Amino acid sequence: MSHTVVILAAGQGTRMKSARAKVLHEVAGRPMLGWVLDAAIATRPSAVMVVVGHEAEAVRASLPAGVSSCVQEPQNGTGHAVAVAMAAIGELDPDHTVLVIPGDTPLIGGETLARLVEGHHSSGAAATVLTAVLDEPAGYGRVVRNDDGAVVAIVEQRDADAATLEIKEVNSGMYAFRAGDLEARLAELRPDNDQGEYYLTDVAAGSVELGRMVRAIVADATQIAGVNSHAQLAGASAVARRAILETLMAEGVSVVDPARTYVDHGVAVGAGAILHPGVHLHGASSVGAGAMVGPDVYCEDSTIGPGARVWYSVLRSASVGAECEVGPYASLRPGTVLKKASKAGTFVEMKKTVLGERAKVPHLSYLGDATVGERANVGAGTITCNYDGFEKHETHIGDDAFIGSDTMLVAPVTIGKGAFTGAGSVISKDVPEDGLGVERSDQRVIPGYAARRRARYRKRDG
Amino acid sequence: MSHTVVILAAGQGTRMKSARAKVLHEVAGRPMLGWVLDAAIATRPSAVMVVVGHEAEAVRASLPAGVSSCVQEPQNGTGHAVAVAMAAIGELDPDHTVLVIPGDTPLIGGETLARLVEGHHSSGAAATVLTAVLDEPAGYGRVVRNDDGAVVAIVEQRDADAATLEIKEVNSGMYAFRAGDLEARLAELRPDNDQGEYYLTDVAAGSVELGRMVRAIVADATQIAGVNSHAQLAGASAVARRAILETLMAEGVSVVDPARTYVDHGVAVGAGAILHPGVHLHGASSVGAGAMVGPDVYCEDSTIGPGARVWYSVLRSASVGAECEVGPYASLRPGTVLKKASKAGTFVEMKKTVLGERAKVPHLSYLGDATVGERANVGAGTITCNYDGFEKHETHIGDDAFIGSDTMLVAPVTIGKGAFTGAGSVISKDVPEDGLGVERSDQRVIPGYAARRRARYRKRDG
Amino acid sequence: MSHTVVILAAGQGTRMKSARAKVLHEVAGRPMLGWVLDAAIATRPSAVMVVVGHEAEAVRASLPAGVSSCVQEPQNGTGHAVAVAMAAIGELDPDHTVLVIPGDTPLIGGETLARLVEGHHSSGAAATVLTAVLDEPAGYGRVVRNDDGAVVAIVEQRDADAATLEIKEVNSGMYAFRAGDLEARLAELRPDNDQGEYYLTDVAAGSVELGRMVRAIVADATQIAGVNSHAQLAGASAVARRAILETLMAEGVSVVDPARTYVDHGVAVGAGAILHPGVHLHGASSVGAGAMVGPDVYCEDSTIGPGARVWYSVLRSASVGAECEVGPYASLRPGTVLKKASKAGTFVEMKKTVLGERAKVPHLSYLGDATVGERANVGAGTITCNYDGFEKHETHIGDDAFIGSDTMLVAPVTIGKGAFTGAGSVISKDVPEDGLGVERSDQRVIPGYAARRRARYRKRDG
Repeated sequence: MSHTVVILAAGQGTRMKSARAKVLHEVAGRPMLGWVLDAAIATRPSAVMVVVGHEAEAVRASLPAGVSSCVQEPQNGTGHAVAVAMAAIGELDPDHTVLVIPGDTPLIGGETLARLVEGHHSSGAAATVLTAVLDEPAGYGRVVRNDDGAVVAIVEQRDADAATLEIKEVNSGMYAFRAGDLEARLAELRPDNDQGEYYLTDVAAGSVELGRMVRAIVADATQIAGVNSHAQLAGASAVARRAILETLMAEGVSVVDPARTYVDHGVAVGAGAILHPGVHLHGASSVGAGAMVGPDVYCEDSTIGPGARVWYSVLRSASVGAECEVGPYASLRPGTVLKKASKAGTFVEMKKTVLGERAKVPHLSYLGDATVGERANVGAGTITCNYDGFEKHETHIGDDAFIGSDTMLVAPVTIGKGAFTGAGSVISKDVPEDGLGVERSDQRVIPGYAARRRARYRKRDG
Repeated sequence: MSHTVVILAAGQGTRMKSARAKVLHEVAGRPMLGWVLDAAIATRPSAVMVVVGHEAEAVRASLPAGVSSCVQEPQNGTGHAVAVAMAAIGELDPDHTVLVIPGDTPLIGGETLARLVEGHHSSGAAATVLTAVLDEPAGYGRVVRNDDGAVVAIVEQRDADAATLEIKEVNSGMYAFRAGDLEARLAELRPDNDQGEYYLTDVAAGSVELGRMVRAIVADATQIAGVNSHAQLAGASAVARRAILETLMAEGVSVVDPARTYVDHGVAVGAGAILHPGVHLHGASSVGAGAMVGPDVYCEDSTIGPGARVWYSVLRSASVGAECEVGPYASLRPGTVLKKASKAGTFVEMKKTVLGERAKVPHLSYLGDATVGERANVGAGTITCNYDGFEKHETHIGDDAFIGSDTMLVAPVTIGKGAFTGAGSVISKDVPEDGLGVERSDQRVIPGYAARRRARYRKRDG
Repeated sequence: MSHTVVILAAGQGTRMKSARAKVLHEVAGRPMLGWVLDAAIATRPSAVMVVVGHEAEAVRASLPAGVSSCVQEPQNGTGHAVAVAMAAIGELDPDHTVLVIPGDTPLIGGETLARLVEGHHSSGAAATVLTAVLDEPAGYGRVVRNDDGAVVAIVEQRDADAATLEIKEVNSGMYAFRAGDLEARLAELRPDNDQGEYYLTDVAAGSVELGRMVRAIVADATQIAGVNSHAQLAGASAVARRAILETLMAEGVSVVDPARTYVDHGVAVGAGAILHPGVHLHGASSVGAGAMVGPDVYCEDSTIGPGARVWYSVLRSASVGAECEVGPYASLRPGTVLKKASKAGTFVEMKKTVLGERAKVPHLSYLGDATVGERANVGAGTITCNYDGFEKHETHIGDDAFIGSDTMLVAPVTIGKGAFTGAGSVISKDVPEDGLGVERSDQRVIPGYAARRRARYRKRDG
């Protein structure tokens, strides 16, 4: 039997005190809504409809292909939101299942939602509510069951008597509905409350009142937690990060301190890799088998090859090949490609630069818009003067070249294969293969200069 | 009714194995005593008297204006300390309230102390003890109450029988006393114990024995925790840091990992700002709305403007304007001012330097004692030679100037508006507006040099 | 009475998905087996025999002098492993004690093992099993005792009835055996199980069946935890690190955030030192009294002297003297020695370099294969050109020398005492004492150059 998912993502997140839509706040590097969508899509629904409201355009822009959206305006409660969604979805077979979930429960798992849908199908209920058992249920709606386990009431905290308050099974706000029952109940919904809003809880309650079968399925308490504040956001992020790392560790990755390692959903890390504390792996990043990463590495949209060692460095849209060494204290900016066994050492920055196999840039250098040949050695203090104040230009360094310390490579310029440059030279003309380029005056030595200067200062200050 | 606060801060903290007075050890970036003083002052007392002993001068130097101190010498117990304080305070109305609190309970809250004072006033008791209910009360003095809730005994662990050991309500060591009763009991105090010391607990016990009314008020267990070791110091710091961050998060700040974020009491952070892991905000620092700070930023006595991005950097007494970019890997030392939308990039150090709006210092530079005009571009490897071995001198760079890579600016020197300097130049004379300053020889190219050198080495080693 | 320890270290750690032997995976910076060996050796045994299997050579190479090893090949179960060990040990007095412990329980303490051995001796049992009481014993073998406390059965989870499953005392897999009983039972051992392996548990069970006395001694649950996955490895590491830090804190070290401080076993830290978050102290490292280390320091095989301040830096096989300053952002590589009160500042890298007392290298420098005299000042941008593409050469800088900014020191070269070098100079010839070495052209100023260039670009693009 097929089903449709409705995700409620119209809220503003007033308690976040943020202009952003609440569901776009990030948990472990991706918007909450992305996590919820993943769980929804994992149930293989026939369609997904996201109800958007505040910051509607930004929320829509975050949706993957194949997911529909509709706008709830004004935001008149969760029941109203579902009614808007049902109108947008169009006619459904009355026996079709509609799964309704909030957009701000990033820890919900796909297998839990699948269990909800399957349980709903097999019982033939009008509505099935996902619940959880909490040690401290205060604030939540309580789920009252009869001896058969059927739901006979969902009672809000404020309406509950003492006996009901003792119940620890609570409503998660996630439901599977029979489409026919959902539509009939939505049509009957009235805003009989102080806020004048239409509540989804009343849909389930309405089915109960009419004697229709309502069931409940219990989920892990962690999974139903909604995020309504930055503190809850931080808490959910910690749980999500830990789950990502548990998966990596089970696959053979060493994580020295999981509480201090920040890996986004979807980042692949090979077996035998070691992640030291303070590592951030974000976006479309990957780490090869046996690589050592960290301490203190920020890696965004970058690949780190097998057996590489990257520590105390920042990588953005960079590619680090197998067995490369990066850091401590390197910054690899977009377009940097380090081929196999090459090195970007200490206080080295690169941008749009390709470093050939076994080439080395050990210290204090800036290379931009450059290519460096295989086995070339770039001395400390080398800078590609790639910007003349008006335009960017390219630098090319041949295989086996030896760039002397403090060489200024005034681009566009080419250093031939096997060529040398003298330390401290400004190289503005090409150097041929196996040649030397040097720009230097003669060194002068002035005996006694320092002694005389000291004496002068001493006299003046004396 | 007014009250006076006595803070007991004479202890040495033997278990800290430190020369410092115990109360000067820091919790979340400030001395323990500072936290206790804040709580005391929040009760709006008529006076605050701090009893100092070990490292008396250092403790006194840490006190804010309006707080008095007296010296307990020798340190003959807590009862003796209060007697010293009462002598220093001078005559008090017998109905005046004296609040006595230890200096090593940094988590005590002002609202809790206020509740103690108010409860004491409203009951008219001779003494009111602040208590807490502990799951594991072992080691603490137990508070025995009668059916009316009045305190009938405070029994030390060593003197307690089995029934008393079952009591989980414990003495915090914080009290509100009626001044008349306090003075009478202090006068009767005897050092009847192995240490020969005068104990404050005996003051409360004395009132009970005389049939005077003694009440108890229960506080949260966290708040009464004393710090007697580095492990307890670390624990208290974690609690204090978390509380600071909870407040910021409630105000709309995103804290990616609250367990790895270190913000001092009193640091303001604007709504919408994001604090990444490894951020330290110390002293008189502030962060503007929407700024992104971290990962791994140390910020001491510095301001970060709205919308700025500061990461992997160290800031001390620096001012970073709105929309500036700092790092990765920048060090901004005292006197650095970055005006709006300017940039201090990678491997950049600044000291006593003002960077104009939209000016950029992207890479590998040291600027000290300098001013940089608006929109100026300072090339990689630029250094202000501000120290000649004897004195510091200033460098001035005009608006829209373009400083070539590896320029040495030998101060005092001025680069005019819109002027250029050639890469690799030592600039020791001023460059006029729109002019070029360059210091360079002609580049020579020596064909075959590298090949010959290689051959020579091969021959020698062959 | 003397005893021999057998450590079972043949396992591969399939669930680690690692080519390495399981016991070589690191907990708080040292292999698990190292921790277990320490605990074993602390019991002062007459001999220690380690049974190795997977990656036998690597495991053997990790053993300290005085520890024997034997190879179990194939790995036919723990009982088989002990039989291999007994054969390798040779004949033992029947009353001799054999302590058998797994190699993958890094948290076991020496005092616990000593208690096991002593309890075994004093009871005269045939076997004594170390146990722990777990809240959640599922998966472990349960220890069934009679009214005298003697062990009457050790029942595996799969064989346990409902009553036995309620028992919370579990088998740790650590035993003390009477050698005579152990040998007799090993000889009777049969691989009567699905895996066809010989199990050590059957040895203890065999003694029970024969009516021999088997006792149990209870240990702390934390100590018996085995490591079978990267998640458990991370968990054990956290416990081990915390224990190391608890010891340091008790000795007077301030640890700002123990959850984010990584100190290896054996690293000495002096009283009054402060370790900030993100500090890693590995290998043969030490920190002197009153030093401030961190945030974010990686220190491997290096010493930090009393009162030094090291932050945001990486040290490997380096020696930092008393009252030195290092960082933020320095990299000290092997062979670096900083004498008293010297400074390696920001963006400074050193290798095989000795810095004299009070010498300073404040910014943006690379010094390799160099000596720097007392009180010398090395300007920003200074680089020792120690590698000519073929060989490394040395640089010597005298006392009180002043190296101008951006000086290239082309080694081999010597700068005399008190000498100066001019900013931007390439120094390839020695500079005598008190002299000046300078390599520079005259600065030219070309008025209007920048204006003309701008006009040209504007015209071209216009």
